Amino acid sequence: MSKTVPVGVSARHIHLTQEHIETLFGPGYQLTEFKPLSQPGQFAANETVAVIGTKGQFDKVRILGPARPATQLEISLTDSFALGVKAPVRESGNIEGTPGITIKGPAGEVTIEQGVIIAARHIHFHTSDAEKWGIKDKDLLKVRLGGERGVVFENVIARVSDSFALDMHIDTDEANAAGARTGDTAEIVD
Amino acid sequence: MSKTVPVGVSARHIHLTQEHIETLFGPGYQLTEFKPLSQPGQFAANETVAVIGTKGQFDKVRILGPARPATQLEISLTDSFALGVKAPVRESGNIEGTPGITIKGPAGEVTIEQGVIIAARHIHFHTSDAEKWGIKDKDLLKVRLGGERGVVFENVIARVSDSFALDMHIDTDEANAAGARTGDTAEIVD
Repeated sequence: MSKTVPVGVSARHIHLTQEHIETLFGPGYQLTEFKPLSQPGQFAANETVAVIGTKGQFDKVRILGPARPATQLEISLTDSFALGVKAPVRESGNIEGTPGITIKGPAGEVTIEQGVIIAARHIHFHTSDAEKWGIKDKDLLKVRLGGERGVVFENVIARVSDSFALDMHIDTDEANAAGARTGDTAEIVD
Repeated sequence: MSKTVPVGVSARHIHLTQEHIETLFGPGYQLTEFKPLSQPGQFAANETVAVIGTKGQFDKVRILGPARPATQLEISLTDSFALGVKAPVRESGNIEGTPGITIKGPAGEVTIEQGVIIAARHIHFHTSDAEKWGIKDKDLLKVRLGGERGVVFENVIARVSDSFALDMHIDTDEANAAGARTGDTAEIVD
């Protein structure tokens, strides 16, 4: 049985706490939805912020909503060199000991002490997909993206939940190395 | 027998004809050596140029010497988006039908009609290495770079010559996707 998964390419983006949203956009501010994402309830917001590193900055980083318990900036390794921030490869939410950064919005700015990561590539599985394929949460998978720049990615983390929709998330470095785009199909090979 | 190869990461760079060197730097100008490269006789020059696309530009692109029969700019897919130039993945030297770009030096500028490529990943083999491992010129290999972001690259082109030194060349997107650096070791797995 072929285990195929749609690919979603994540450009740099940021998740914010409600407190930081209000610091950056003003008291009581609520994010507004630009478009829904593949995971149920998640959305790209109309709002963007600037992030400022020691070496460079990005002026328009998309906020993904809704608000989260911790602010987290997700960048590529290429971005980390441009910003001058030594971000480690981490699973989303695992930000202990990661570097911080300054974030600027129209109403103010905030410097976080930690929260800058390079998101580890992963696949969201609905529980039913995972069961069908014998995959457990936290499994490390090998996943092939074919084509001219065909690549097999190792250490792709399986994340399994009833609230997930089947989707593989890679960053722009990984997508460009593989010549892949959102909507392409990957195959779990091991 | 394990077939291991040192990895060299190629940042964006340009090869120039002697005619274009003189247009950009002045009549009779000769490139000066900054440091030697892994391939015998090749060097990174002290000189840099600006390259100007429709969407963006890079101000300091390293010239690799010596002068070549055709001018060729080698960029990553990430770079191609930043410049606004639709460069294809090609082997070095195969520039027919590729896009052009404007190049600016201290003494002048030139717009080339073609020559912008994303270099196809490849391994330089000295003839003796290739024979020992049963590899022929133009073979397409699968090559593994291990570690936290472990990757197997498919379609790695074998280039075999008595004038080559053993070295695998990948671009910055590929290196960053794999978490690899110049001096790392790759293994030919197929």
